[in-house]
Amino acid sequence: MINFEFKNPTKIIFGKGEIAKISREIPQDARILLVYGGGSIKQNGVYDQIQEALKAHTVYEFAGVTANPEYETLRNAIAVIKEKDVTYLLAVGGGSVIDGVKFLSAAAGYEGDPWDVVKKPVRPQEGEGIPFGTVLTLPATGSEMNSGYVISRKETNEKLGAGGPGLFPQFSVLDPEVVRSIPKRQIANGIVDAYTHVLEQYMTEPSSADLQERFAENILISLQQHATKLMEPEFDYGAAANFMWCCTMALNGLIQKGVVTDWAVHAMGHELTAYYGIDHARTLAIIAPAHYRYNLETKKEKLAQYAERVWGIAEGTQEEKANKGIIKMEQFFHSLGIDTKLSDYVADYQDTATRVKNAFINRNWMGIGEYKRITPQDAYEIVLRSC
Amino acid sequence: MINFEFKNPTKIIFGKGEIAKISREIPQDARILLVYGGGSIKQNGVYDQIQEALKAHTVYEFAGVTANPEYETLRNAIAVIKEKDVTYLLAVGGGSVIDGVKFLSAAAGYEGDPWDVVKKPVRPQEGEGIPFGTVLTLPATGSEMNSGYVISRKETNEKLGAGGPGLFPQFSVLDPEVVRSIPKRQIANGIVDAYTHVLEQYMTEPSSADLQERFAENILISLQQHATKLMEPEFDYGAAANFMWCCTMALNGLIQKGVVTDWAVHAMGHELTAYYGIDHARTLAIIAPAHYRYNLETKKEKLAQYAERVWGIAEGTQEEKANKGIIKMEQFFHSLGIDTKLSDYVADYQDTATRVKNAFINRNWMGIGEYKRITPQDAYEIVLRSC
Repeated sequence: MINFEFKNPTKIIFGKGEIAKISREIPQDARILLVYGGGSIKQNGVYDQIQEALKAHTVYEFAGVTANPEYETLRNAIAVIKEKDVTYLLAVGGGSVIDGVKFLSAAAGYEGDPWDVVKKPVRPQEGEGIPFGTVLTLPATGSEMNSGYVISRKETNEKLGAGGPGLFPQFSVLDPEVVRSIPKRQIANGIVDAYTHVLEQYMTEPSSADLQERFAENILISLQQHATKLMEPEFDYGAAANFMWCCTMALNGLIQKGVVTDWAVHAMGHELTAYYGIDHARTLAIIAPAHYRYNLETKKEKLAQYAERVWGIAEGTQEEKANKGIIKMEQFFHSLGIDTKLSDYVADYQDTATRVKNAFINRNWMGIGEYKRITPQDAYEIVLRSC
Repeated sequence: MINFEFKNPTKIIFGKGEIAKISREIPQDARILLVYGGGSIKQNGVYDQIQEALKAHTVYEFAGVTANPEYETLRNAIAVIKEKDVTYLLAVGGGSVIDGVKFLSAAAGYEGDPWDVVKKPVRPQEGEGIPFGTVLTLPATGSEMNSGYVISRKETNEKLGAGGPGLFPQFSVLDPEVVRSIPKRQIANGIVDAYTHVLEQYMTEPSSADLQERFAENILISLQQHATKLMEPEFDYGAAANFMWCCTMALNGLIQKGVVTDWAVHAMGHELTAYYGIDHARTLAIIAPAHYRYNLETKKEKLAQYAERVWGIAEGTQEEKANKGIIKMEQFFHSLGIDTKLSDYVADYQDTATRVKNAFINRNWMGIGEYKRITPQDAYEIVLRSC
């Protein structure tokens, strides 16, 4: 097991009806900025629950944070924070809104150019940023219990990840009832997003971190087990609760400790979103199987273990099991209505592999993924196989 | 899934050679009280590593904290804390030393009778106690990453548990190298202690908290898997590391969230330690099988699930699987050299069941365990079957 440090101070408040508790978590004298996206929280009742909970607090609002939260939008929020002397941020939404609020927490009290805090992700240390909490309305990214965020800047065509030990939410409310009104397409995306988060921290060379590997496998199994009920028209609270908790546990730091991680699927997937606007989760479903087939030699043992423990495949050589595991993975994505080939999404995909390769070279990304072994040429081969 | 709150702010610093990092975790101007037990840390090199790490700090010492840490001893430490104006506590040891330091953290700044803080376990809230960190030298209790403690008071024959949100260690260093010099008897105890901690949070009526159940099962599997190597004469770092992390994860709050817990085995086991001085872990191995057999009706489904998932028992009715699971559990304890009948430990055991029953009645414990369903008469029956 590799040496590691683990600290995650976020308070999780989990369950039906728990949104009301935010009034207790935010100081009575706080000047709160409620940050949200496009207004779905006004349809699903979450907005009303928050207004009710905070009726004795001072609350300002900032709406309009988009998916892949944009710097240009968030800059306007910084102006509101300064104007209203905001002392507490409340993110109500999915990963994009929460990521946006993390940026605001880091940037609002910073004297220089706000973009600095994204480029030099050492800020904020604990206690430096504006404190914030979240009410999660879309399980997927795990942002509600980690300290990382991703921000896009249109004017420079940058999409950067940052974070720091001061950017854990003080609290996050996870009420599985919010899943009731999420469109199935987004639920499917959430399942695949969380599933791939786990794969990126698991599908590597063998580690000796047995417990972490098993926990990773459990999250995969639990996502698979609840997927069918989640995709059915009728709402199932138990399935929603397990789904929600799986998404959080998939990226709260626990399963990445003591192991080597990969994240090559995300690096390549991001390009497909950039070129074609394909949903983030779907790009992961396109890249992952091709990535694992191309890297079968280094990942064979873990792929076979995945096939055995996650899918119960007992027969065959290690290589046969590994290949069966990848097929099972594809079938799982298909069962959610998610296609796994780029050509299923775009007609004009022929030069994609070359574009990805050149993009990586231009950015000086000479090696990505586990031990930075995936070269731009490897990325070319993988994307080619994903078409 | 039952609604829950989860917050665990302890920073884990895990791995070989990491003890040196404590110098960074404790404020430079702190006046530290180093608290330890009987001196094994002077033989295994941990004491020297701590002295080296803290050579630029002000460090006082308090040695002599015993197993089942005693109030009478700890009162002397409070005097030292006051006399030396100590501002930071460093527990170096196993669960007893860490539990003792939690009590000191809570009691030293309290104006009234120190025993109050044990009897009224609302204190301290976050920020109220003296801050403390730990260096774990004996994996077992999980105290290094939770906020509970148990203290014994000889003069009144009390043994009480307390705790509070202010009693999480600020940091805990887990260096698996410490396992190298632990006597095998104590390693066996540690395995059974952690194993039973998991059972107490798992072996109940079925829950719908699928992910937590699976995590619990995997801590059991991982403990089983590494037990053989841990009991062999040669030191195995990987086995030690997984053992250490399993013990922490078994009682850091995660697997108890969203489920009903039991803790009846501990309640009955504590009596056997009180009467006969049997090691805590061994009392659990005595009580657990009898408890599960006696409560087979309510726990049958989970016992069968345990047999299936943890031991791979696929054949038989639910009841047959449940019974096979209990036999596997006993065999596992035996494989560690731990006997599972009271008569293996004490010759004069005949009135034990009656003593336990009467003790519970005298304390007004009319129901213990899951849903408080185990009456003093049930405890009598269980202890009778454990003889």
